[in-house]
Amino acid sequence: MAESIKKQITKVKMQCTALSSSSVEQRNDLLLQICKGLQQDRNVILEANAEDLRNASALSESVKSRLKLDEAKLDSVIESIEDVVAQDDPIGKVLARRLLDDNLLLEKISVPLGVIGMVFEARPDAFLQIVSLCLKSGNCLVLKGGKEANRTNHVLYESIKRSCRGSFAGENWLLLLESHEDVKRMLEADGLVDLIIPRGSYELISYVKENTRIPVLGHADGLCAMYVDRSAFVGKAVACALDSKINYPAACNSIENLIVHKDIAKEFLPIMAKAFSENNVLIVGDERVSSIIRCARATEADWDTEYLGLEISILMVDSIDEAIDFIAHHTSHHTDAIIAEDELAMRKFLTKVDSADVFANCSTRFADGYRFGLGAEVGISTSKIHARGPVGLEGLMSSKYILQGRGQIVQTYMGSMCRPFKHQKLSTEGVSQILNGIDGEEEEDE
Amino acid sequence: MAESIKKQITKVKMQCTALSSSSVEQRNDLLLQICKGLQQDRNVILEANAEDLRNASALSESVKSRLKLDEAKLDSVIESIEDVVAQDDPIGKVLARRLLDDNLLLEKISVPLGVIGMVFEARPDAFLQIVSLCLKSGNCLVLKGGKEANRTNHVLYESIKRSCRGSFAGENWLLLLESHEDVKRMLEADGLVDLIIPRGSYELISYVKENTRIPVLGHADGLCAMYVDRSAFVGKAVACALDSKINYPAACNSIENLIVHKDIAKEFLPIMAKAFSENNVLIVGDERVSSIIRCARATEADWDTEYLGLEISILMVDSIDEAIDFIAHHTSHHTDAIIAEDELAMRKFLTKVDSADVFANCSTRFADGYRFGLGAEVGISTSKIHARGPVGLEGLMSSKYILQGRGQIVQTYMGSMCRPFKHQKLSTEGVSQILNGIDGEEEEDE
Repeated sequence: MAESIKKQITKVKMQCTALSSSSVEQRNDLLLQICKGLQQDRNVILEANAEDLRNASALSESVKSRLKLDEAKLDSVIESIEDVVAQDDPIGKVLARRLLDDNLLLEKISVPLGVIGMVFEARPDAFLQIVSLCLKSGNCLVLKGGKEANRTNHVLYESIKRSCRGSFAGENWLLLLESHEDVKRMLEADGLVDLIIPRGSYELISYVKENTRIPVLGHADGLCAMYVDRSAFVGKAVACALDSKINYPAACNSIENLIVHKDIAKEFLPIMAKAFSENNVLIVGDERVSSIIRCARATEADWDTEYLGLEISILMVDSIDEAIDFIAHHTSHHTDAIIAEDELAMRKFLTKVDSADVFANCSTRFADGYRFGLGAEVGISTSKIHARGPVGLEGLMSSKYILQGRGQIVQTYMGSMCRPFKHQKLSTEGVSQILNGIDGEEEEDE
Repeated sequence: MAESIKKQITKVKMQCTALSSSSVEQRNDLLLQICKGLQQDRNVILEANAEDLRNASALSESVKSRLKLDEAKLDSVIESIEDVVAQDDPIGKVLARRLLDDNLLLEKISVPLGVIGMVFEARPDAFLQIVSLCLKSGNCLVLKGGKEANRTNHVLYESIKRSCRGSFAGENWLLLLESHEDVKRMLEADGLVDLIIPRGSYELISYVKENTRIPVLGHADGLCAMYVDRSAFVGKAVACALDSKINYPAACNSIENLIVHKDIAKEFLPIMAKAFSENNVLIVGDERVSSIIRCARATEADWDTEYLGLEISILMVDSIDEAIDFIAHHTSHHTDAIIAEDELAMRKFLTKVDSADVFANCSTRFADGYRFGLGAEVGISTSKIHARGPVGLEGLMSSKYILQGRGQIVQTYMGSMCRPFKHQKLSTEGVSQILNGIDGEEEEDE
């Protein structure tokens, strides 16, 4: 009988200390070992993927293109693992340093979260990315990929485990789940899993959010809006709105709603409608919009719909405040943008719109970890807790406080004749004293 | 019929933008206005508290001393509100700044979380502290204090609301709940309340954690341990262990378990036992400990018990690894300490123990926002998500990304002939460009 998932996740958790207390050299060496292993297992990986693809013949082209792992894609993902090797060590960064008193040094340092639970789509390249980011950041990993990639994932998993065997990390730091039932068990494993990162459909992410007490990093929907202010340059507005819609319509950072100030509507809408029409974007609009351009009338539901395709709903407003209010009630607070030349209007929008990303005079499609320069992206969070917006490696980190003294007690700092604290802020440059070792001088009891 | 709690909390949430987009001068002025109001209402506040105290005559002295709000305590809490006024503005801090390309500036800035839900004990001074910290940080607040303080809290609430009436914040940013039923409704209000901070008994905090999907900041238990290594100076170890136990036995950062290396046990234990006995601390020990000092034998349950009083369980280990393993399985990962002169042992402990606070050669009682120099403390978190350890004002903050361009679209940065990103890291000195206004230069469409 197979071991229960909870027992298997418990085994994963038991590897946390080995990973969190390893050196960056150990983790980088293992990452390179994994690359070597993948090279050696190249043929069996490509064969497994070819079989996954044969079984997926009925699926859409976009699913198949995500599923496909050919020579070139395998090379490029192995290269991206080498990029992860080149990155700075995320463990042991000094986030704050304060001398509480003589010989009483406080440091807040970054440490891995522990066990990450990841549920993602049928993308073998994403599998390898996730594994490398977790290993680099000293986190253990429980993961489940889309079932269409089961054969490929299984072969990748076996290859990685072979590379890990005998290393500081052992082979149990990583666990591949195989079924929806397994995912259910993982979602119940609070106390063992520290953070769940789901990627995929709205349904998947909503399911995860509703079925776990473990913190979830991610976003269920990407219902983004762009507001074209009365002060906007029409050319800029059309270019930005078009890019925000058609650059990748299925992306979470594409816009679904376009909000137009009444004073610019007559000039802007006909040009915008022409551009949309030339790019096969279907427009639905409110009454005033449809009196200026030819379009279907939007229903109430349209204002809350993530089309994920070539469709957009357009609304006319009397003021920027009305636009901000619409955004507060209808978007998913992922990414919302204003196009305006009036500085006050822009500042008002950037200040008052409470979304993870708030943009002025550019496409919403810039909302992305790579474009933001964060390096690898682990997800985009619409939660206000822990991490918000595109999240890089730091989203996989927690912190701990280290306090090093020479025998100090709190009683000394209490009462009317107490010794005062110094609370001297120190530079956070350099590595933590614990990684560096303290000065080593031994002295008598004070 | 009274308005439903959900409706009332919805009204609170509607004030979020007014608070988050206010200036620090507005918030400081209102805080000073609140101080003035409290001075004016001094007599009615003290009278209400006197009545609460009369009704609490059957309660313990410690509860009554927390409940009591006399002239001196009211003065000191009003002073502490003035300290909050003096603090830096936590809103709009630039957490990261990066030039993605020419005229495409990314800033990550601190913003309020939104609505904080606070449940706390019968301490009128804590009520005022919480209100001032939330207002300073631009957060709306729903709170419920211990019922023993109901009259005092109600009078304080009315006084504060009077001061807020007509201000930028209005009077609805703050809501006082009156019953346990109300708290239940608040715990169900996910989507309206962004973070719950419970303070009080283990039962209360466990209840909150088990009955809400809203993130909870705090710790249910404080089961802390101290390990005395073979390399420890006995004098230091005895002083630190004694302070960690007796300085405030009911505190979450007091120790419940003392772990002693076998090589130092014969020298250390008799002196430690004498010190504990002189301070009325009851010792339970394992078999080996009780063969050296006179003490009751610990049961299995003792290793997982937070005594919150003058009792301690002592365990002997053969190695530091055994101590680290004990801590991994038995403490609540709040604050754990090592006493050692051996630098390697100390570094091993600081690295491998995965607790919010890990100390070397000092009392565990230092684990506290004030002693850490964080200014006001909103709680101590044992969660690894969002904030860990003693949490200052930054625990009440989230962030948002602001991206300001001149009409850039993503298409420009894609494909084989694409324009590359600059991703130039800039200093985070100075306030955000949105608070400062951008350069104001108007230019033609690019």
